[in-house]
Amino acid sequence: MRVAVVGATGQVGTVMRAILLERNFPVDEIRFFASSRSAGSTIVWKGQAVEVEDSATAAFSGIDIALMSSGATSSRELAPRFAAAGATVIDNSSAWRMDPEVPLVVPEVNEHALITIPKGIVANPNCTTMVAMPVLKPLHLAAGLVSVIAATYQAVSGSGREGVNELADQLEKTRDHDVRVLTFDGRAFPLDQGVKFPATIAHNVIPLAGAIVDDGSLETNEEQKLRDESRKILEIPSLHVSATCVRVPVFTGHSLALTLGFERPLTPEHAMEILAKARGVELSDLPTPRLASGTDPCYVGRVRHAEALENGLSLFVSGDNLRKGAALNAVQIAEALLELR
Amino acid sequence: MRVAVVGATGQVGTVMRAILLERNFPVDEIRFFASSRSAGSTIVWKGQAVEVEDSATAAFSGIDIALMSSGATSSRELAPRFAAAGATVIDNSSAWRMDPEVPLVVPEVNEHALITIPKGIVANPNCTTMVAMPVLKPLHLAAGLVSVIAATYQAVSGSGREGVNELADQLEKTRDHDVRVLTFDGRAFPLDQGVKFPATIAHNVIPLAGAIVDDGSLETNEEQKLRDESRKILEIPSLHVSATCVRVPVFTGHSLALTLGFERPLTPEHAMEILAKARGVELSDLPTPRLASGTDPCYVGRVRHAEALENGLSLFVSGDNLRKGAALNAVQIAEALLELR
Repeated sequence: MRVAVVGATGQVGTVMRAILLERNFPVDEIRFFASSRSAGSTIVWKGQAVEVEDSATAAFSGIDIALMSSGATSSRELAPRFAAAGATVIDNSSAWRMDPEVPLVVPEVNEHALITIPKGIVANPNCTTMVAMPVLKPLHLAAGLVSVIAATYQAVSGSGREGVNELADQLEKTRDHDVRVLTFDGRAFPLDQGVKFPATIAHNVIPLAGAIVDDGSLETNEEQKLRDESRKILEIPSLHVSATCVRVPVFTGHSLALTLGFERPLTPEHAMEILAKARGVELSDLPTPRLASGTDPCYVGRVRHAEALENGLSLFVSGDNLRKGAALNAVQIAEALLELR
Repeated sequence: MRVAVVGATGQVGTVMRAILLERNFPVDEIRFFASSRSAGSTIVWKGQAVEVEDSATAAFSGIDIALMSSGATSSRELAPRFAAAGATVIDNSSAWRMDPEVPLVVPEVNEHALITIPKGIVANPNCTTMVAMPVLKPLHLAAGLVSVIAATYQAVSGSGREGVNELADQLEKTRDHDVRVLTFDGRAFPLDQGVKFPATIAHNVIPLAGAIVDDGSLETNEEQKLRDESRKILEIPSLHVSATCVRVPVFTGHSLALTLGFERPLTPEHAMEILAKARGVELSDLPTPRLASGTDPCYVGRVRHAEALENGLSLFVSGDNLRKGAALNAVQIAEALLELR
């Protein structure tokens, strides 16, 4: 396979390269692309220096699979060009996800959607949505999912390197402050509001991940992605989803507190039996982002009855937003494409 | 008024003393009590050194109001003794909250419950529950609250000084680690699991605040307190409450992502109008623990329609768990008692 990683120098691109190696993906030829800023630098691949090509000017022919993580604006332009040159594009941005001619795929959940790829583009879901899908699908098959109420705990690496640096810089600035000050009046120590996030993220939580959508809903784009993408991936067009997307001072690992309503009764015990056997899922007494980061599964636990919804269950899910939430799922889609050939 | 602060050297006791001064509570005589460990030390009150008395051995006569924050075990023994000696006890522990003869009071919400105090004891609600009550009450009056789905973001100071120190110590140990390590595999740097919390709290979130109750429910005591205390304070015995209580790496400021179901329709606009006028509540575009810490109001924002519940609304609340969540509410109860005299 001739494989391209587009956005190869970014955070997700870095993890994509690592995961291709980890999983021994059959790469015969590798090419790395990035914006003009990073073009010309070299990346070591299996002991050899590979020059990063400028995605604005390079020729794209002779590529079988392009793993793309270069942002929505870039992807809207680049994905069709890679596809026209013969590649199947697996795109990590939001650009193509809701296009009816683009499959939106989590291999454990809806691999069958890869059977037809009209535009030569497959979309990788949003990192928060992704972490929940392998958990929700088998429960849906068992009892018929009707509604999802989600509150998220999203890591800063979901906002790229800038998000990571913003948290790290703010933590650094508070490190010599008296803990009593931090305890009794968190605002008493000076901290930048931040650029990447709409409020200080160190020692804080911000109930606004993404940006408010200008459609009167007062929801953020993250909250709408969770609804729209869940409906498409789970193939439940009528699914009710009410989400509150919150950024937390965690470097990597997205979590969701989920309360679920079903058509039919589903006991916590039965749900746990189902989840213990589910692909890509690992039951845990205490799923946390620290447990999940650097690993592949979606960890799920705290499964229990929820009286506030009909046939209700509450549970908590944590997954690595850079791996399963982005790079790993993209490589898993590539693996599924190979099998389907 | 002859006022006692019991647990005067603790975190909440410290804030109680500060708030008595801030609000010019009419203190004619002050006495401080603590366990034998702290007894004999002195605390400065209005320029005078006051010796801390041993609550196990001291005489309790001549006290009008005892603000007690010394933990449930201690309170079960001490509160009746202070009450028998003539004081009205305002107790911050969980010991008396569900006793039908003990009013559980948030003055903005159910001040009328103070009219009869059969045991001489008034209970102060749990810090997480408290932050939500001034927001839920006026919405309930407007539309009839039926169900509450809550995911919490609870600060470490809710677990006392030991919780604060555990987060501070863990942050200190990671401060020289490479951010890339923290980002790509949070478990790669060594950190104690911790003593006060069931997992590492630095750079993590822990979906288990409190302890699992041994009643088959798989819920934590924090999750059950939120249900039981909300029903009692709001006077809605049938209220459905499904909560997931999560500890986050924030020093002070508890937050809740709430999704609410009502009997009657309630638009976000109408809800915001109501909340703008509600006592103890402040509307905010972005309520965060950092905004709330060191201040009195319960901040509420992100009010919007929630399709997953009938007549549903989602919103986010942040409040200072040491002030409104504990010490401030206790002093407000004392103020209400004075007015009712």
